Amino acid sequence: MRSILLLGAGRSASSLLKYLIDHAKAQEWHITVAERDIALATRLTQGSEEVAKAVELDATDAKKRAALIATHDLVISMLPAFMHMDVLKDCLRLKKNVITPSYVPDALWPLDAEFKKAGLIVLNEMGVDPGIDHMSAMRILDDLRSKGATMEAFESYCGGLVAPESDDNPWGYKFSWNPRNVVLAGQGNAAKYIHNGELKYIPYHKLYQHTTRVQLTDLGSFDGYANRDSLKYREPYGISDIPTMKRGTLRKGGYCEAWDAFVQLGCTEDGFAMELPATATWADYVLSFLPEEATKENLHVSLANYLGIAPDGPVIKRLHWLGLFGNGAIGKAGLSPAATLQRLLEKKWQLGPDDKDMLVMWHRFRYSLDGGSKELQASLVVKGLNTTYTAMAQTVGLPMGIAAKLLLNGRISDRGVLLPLKPELYDPILNELASLGIAFTEREEAL
Amino acid sequence: MRSILLLGAGRSASSLLKYLIDHAKAQEWHITVAERDIALATRLTQGSEEVAKAVELDATDAKKRAALIATHDLVISMLPAFMHMDVLKDCLRLKKNVITPSYVPDALWPLDAEFKKAGLIVLNEMGVDPGIDHMSAMRILDDLRSKGATMEAFESYCGGLVAPESDDNPWGYKFSWNPRNVVLAGQGNAAKYIHNGELKYIPYHKLYQHTTRVQLTDLGSFDGYANRDSLKYREPYGISDIPTMKRGTLRKGGYCEAWDAFVQLGCTEDGFAMELPATATWADYVLSFLPEEATKENLHVSLANYLGIAPDGPVIKRLHWLGLFGNGAIGKAGLSPAATLQRLLEKKWQLGPDDKDMLVMWHRFRYSLDGGSKELQASLVVKGLNTTYTAMAQTVGLPMGIAAKLLLNGRISDRGVLLPLKPELYDPILNELASLGIAFTEREEAL
Repeated sequence: MRSILLLGAGRSASSLLKYLIDHAKAQEWHITVAERDIALATRLTQGSEEVAKAVELDATDAKKRAALIATHDLVISMLPAFMHMDVLKDCLRLKKNVITPSYVPDALWPLDAEFKKAGLIVLNEMGVDPGIDHMSAMRILDDLRSKGATMEAFESYCGGLVAPESDDNPWGYKFSWNPRNVVLAGQGNAAKYIHNGELKYIPYHKLYQHTTRVQLTDLGSFDGYANRDSLKYREPYGISDIPTMKRGTLRKGGYCEAWDAFVQLGCTEDGFAMELPATATWADYVLSFLPEEATKENLHVSLANYLGIAPDGPVIKRLHWLGLFGNGAIGKAGLSPAATLQRLLEKKWQLGPDDKDMLVMWHRFRYSLDGGSKELQASLVVKGLNTTYTAMAQTVGLPMGIAAKLLLNGRISDRGVLLPLKPELYDPILNELASLGIAFTEREEAL
Repeated sequence: MRSILLLGAGRSASSLLKYLIDHAKAQEWHITVAERDIALATRLTQGSEEVAKAVELDATDAKKRAALIATHDLVISMLPAFMHMDVLKDCLRLKKNVITPSYVPDALWPLDAEFKKAGLIVLNEMGVDPGIDHMSAMRILDDLRSKGATMEAFESYCGGLVAPESDDNPWGYKFSWNPRNVVLAGQGNAAKYIHNGELKYIPYHKLYQHTTRVQLTDLGSFDGYANRDSLKYREPYGISDIPTMKRGTLRKGGYCEAWDAFVQLGCTEDGFAMELPATATWADYVLSFLPEEATKENLHVSLANYLGIAPDGPVIKRLHWLGLFGNGAIGKAGLSPAATLQRLLEKKWQLGPDDKDMLVMWHRFRYSLDGGSKELQASLVVKGLNTTYTAMAQTVGLPMGIAAKLLLNGRISDRGVLLPLKPELYDPILNELASLGIAFTEREEAL
């Protein structure tokens, strides 16, 4: 009998927990779901009490958290990313293996030697993006290199979107994960990538203007904007000298152009509280970001002129649909511009009870082999089953679950701080994902 | 005999120290200059050993710093702003009065009651901006209100610039204070102000586009961009309900438009190290912020197209003058975009040995009185004597010195965390400044 501690049972944990419960008997697992919202954890384990139990945990309670970790064989942390370091330090001290879906925190690398020395595994970036992106890219890269190909370009985009059958708004977007992260996406340092050997830095206020059009058969056109740092994976991917490398996020065509209006206005800033009263309208909100000569009368024209766009064009239409030019009250004072905007979007972009989300990932490789240049595109499209087992929950959770199985069965030979970049991880995980319907389609052509 | 401890003797401390030394005998002062660069401190006190001595101090050495503070009657801190809180806490513990030229740190207000209880004075914002701006504005506001005026608008701008006789570059700018602060100016939260009763928020990437033109007789035209937070002084100034209030920074006409090119490109970002090698050229630097289709050939045209400006216009001419399109090597790798830019500007915008700087401050008040509307403009122009006794050093240091005299002579009745907003401070200080040639010119007209 092996015991698994699942820390956090939020939106993306449903498919992971289902996988763990489904495999618990055969794998001889016992699962503990530790969650602040005990009612949620109890609901998720209902009917599976034989193999899974729910316990209440405020994960910031260091003592209680450590006591739980100490009594389990494997820790899977689905907590918010900023809480991972505390959990990882616990695991080092208490000698436990651990899996997370999050980016490796900068503070983790210095502990790599200690984890190695203790014979422990810290498996990070094990969800979808990061996660499936790494595994699917590495499988193709390793394959091409084994054939003697020279890599010329690698671009990779991923987006959590709404399925076409549930897409009934002009943004082509509904929230399938943390709305706050969507509103703040891309903030911080400039996005970095390399194009034909030239380093490129795009500041946040230009990010949604520099998009790449991605056309997917049957699904239409998407726009991709650059992720924070596309440069740092060149070395782990073994393509340090590749002339072009860019990673990004996909949105439905037209979304980025319209979102850029929010960025240009300053609506996505999160560092200060606005002074507008709760009774202020959405029109007041928009007006506060416009120049002094703007007026609430014909506000959309003032806005269009300020942004240099057509007053009757698609961007203004999308903003109209949100009610941004109307007299609806904001309803709450003292929020940042971003949190104010989030209030509106949470109402408008809610995934309805019958809606399905969709996860899209797209890679494009360019390489030379035997004197010729070729392009390989690989795409993944996953649709949600319902609002619980969303595409997001499946693609984040299932790789985590499969990785847990591999780890507990002694199938991971590396130790220390790991990413899923090697065949011993990506082969069994991608194969099992494919058997569960999560499979890439590849298309190759000579250039 | 009263003893004064001057912490830090950097660029802006020269005129302050001269004032203290000049008044030491008559006022029975003894001055200790505590500075990390002991050679600098020794040079500044040379010939005045009777009243002033230099000691070496690394101000982060808490023990040595406290020992020095403990043996003096008054502390004047000219340290970098981020170090003030440590000094202020020392002063509370050791029961010493203290003066700084910096904005009140947020963490200071909670200690106000303790300072008051101990009968201590913490006099902040006692330089030029903040400092002379508060005092000159409050004197006019108090005067207008005493006549029964209703305030309709208050705008206030200040800039540390280069004197016209030393202005020999197309930017009309040379560094008279910390270059890093100039490069990063305006970053962080959106600038906030109020115009005709409407709150306005300007994000950083729009800041240098929303300028106010200020025309000063004999000195030509200036552009003012909004300061971080123009709203927070409404209450301390007693004009909480004023419909228009805006504070800002002045630059020579044309500067803001050209600086905006750096902001748009992302050249002023400071959060990450660029990967360009030390041998990379300034043209490589510019290219890294441009879209993929840009080329080093005709780089200025690519840039102009990207920014939507004329390739032979004044902005491109200013960038050309800096050598940004040339093959000069950056010379150092691993710097942020902002630190890289600063390297270039420090060479190009250096105040030469014979150059003079200039401080310009400009207020505009609009008010109604006796049924009529009036406008009052007040302007201050101070030129540097040389590169030591700059306009910046004079206007920051002299109010500090005069305030020290008032404080040590028991002329300040208030206790606790203070700003120079009341007649007992602004009257004697503005009067003595005027006697030293630092005086405002006023012009009033009916609207």
